[in-house]
Amino acid sequence: MLTIHGDIRSGNCLKVKWMLDALGRDYQWIEVDIMSGESRTPGFLLMNPAGQVPTLVLEDGRTLAQSNAILLHLADGTGWIPADAYERARMFEWLFWEQYSHEPYVAVARFQRVYAGKTADEVEPRLIERGNAALARMEAALVRDAWLAGGETPTLADLALVAYTRVAHEGGFDLAAYPFVQNWVGRVEAEFGIEG
Amino acid sequence: MLTIHGDIRSGNCLKVKWMLDALGRDYQWIEVDIMSGESRTPGFLLMNPAGQVPTLVLEDGRTLAQSNAILLHLADGTGWIPADAYERARMFEWLFWEQYSHEPYVAVARFQRVYAGKTADEVEPRLIERGNAALARMEAALVRDAWLAGGETPTLADLALVAYTRVAHEGGFDLAAYPFVQNWVGRVEAEFGIEG
Repeated sequence: MLTIHGDIRSGNCLKVKWMLDALGRDYQWIEVDIMSGESRTPGFLLMNPAGQVPTLVLEDGRTLAQSNAILLHLADGTGWIPADAYERARMFEWLFWEQYSHEPYVAVARFQRVYAGKTADEVEPRLIERGNAALARMEAALVRDAWLAGGETPTLADLALVAYTRVAHEGGFDLAAYPFVQNWVGRVEAEFGIEG
Repeated sequence: MLTIHGDIRSGNCLKVKWMLDALGRDYQWIEVDIMSGESRTPGFLLMNPAGQVPTLVLEDGRTLAQSNAILLHLADGTGWIPADAYERARMFEWLFWEQYSHEPYVAVARFQRVYAGKTADEVEPRLIERGNAALARMEAALVRDAWLAGGETPTLADLALVAYTRVAHEGGFDLAAYPFVQNWVGRVEAEFGIEG
């Protein structure tokens, strides 16, 4: 059986949980409290030298890190990875963009509020500014296309991007300013059976 | 013919150039001076709304951004993307890790020195600290395996990671402290025909 070491409040970890649930896979979830250093213990670092969650342990004991790499591995051979070469390339573009230009702002602003207990005024203004730029870029894409990679059906790009976008308000972002994003969040949640 | 819009000093752009050269593809290189705002003009933003280089324009005019997504598209069907599912997953793990935990420190420290003209003392200490943590993680991996994804031959993970690692000294990092990384840099350069 697959084992996931993750923090249930982390969008990066939830992505993996939603994928496993959508695939109907059996798995064991081991909760890791990153705020109390549980991802930095010697035992954890042996499993994942980067000290990050989520970390996947395969049936044979081999490990895999990086949420989007885990999604790609789990979804291999499914329709969530487009067969069309260009659409697949666009999916990869969004997956890398998510980790470079979205997560470091939208998720980190939320981290400061939800995990670190900061008030709205204490969150770095740069995070809000760049987070809004990321949401505006998604809005422009979703005005044009129903799904981020531009095809007829959702892909891993939608699953990866919805993780922190759906809880962006917890970081101080107002999704009402991005109506196409808001509509897309509901559609992605429905497609992947995401609740709560 | 393929067209690349890129800045020749940027490791993210050079990755794409090296891949095209290794594949023997014809392409046109259009130099973009990011410091004078050439990646933020209305015309450029139409091509890539993220305002980033490199941006690839395909023969049919469609565009693609994010250096690692471009590498994956160009190398599709070659041996630089492992056929083995787990090795391929490890390659993805390193590609995402590169953009999240290596480039924002190793490349940004170099950016501050090479592009922005800062002195060593003016570079943020946090960049040096986290950049060294990234290099130490690579060293630990390369003590164990010849190539990052753990297989017998190099993959896109090696190409992507070598881009800023080989010029890390320009950001104030001392690769002599990482002998396995230093040896690997030479081997990756030889494999991909990287010079200068």
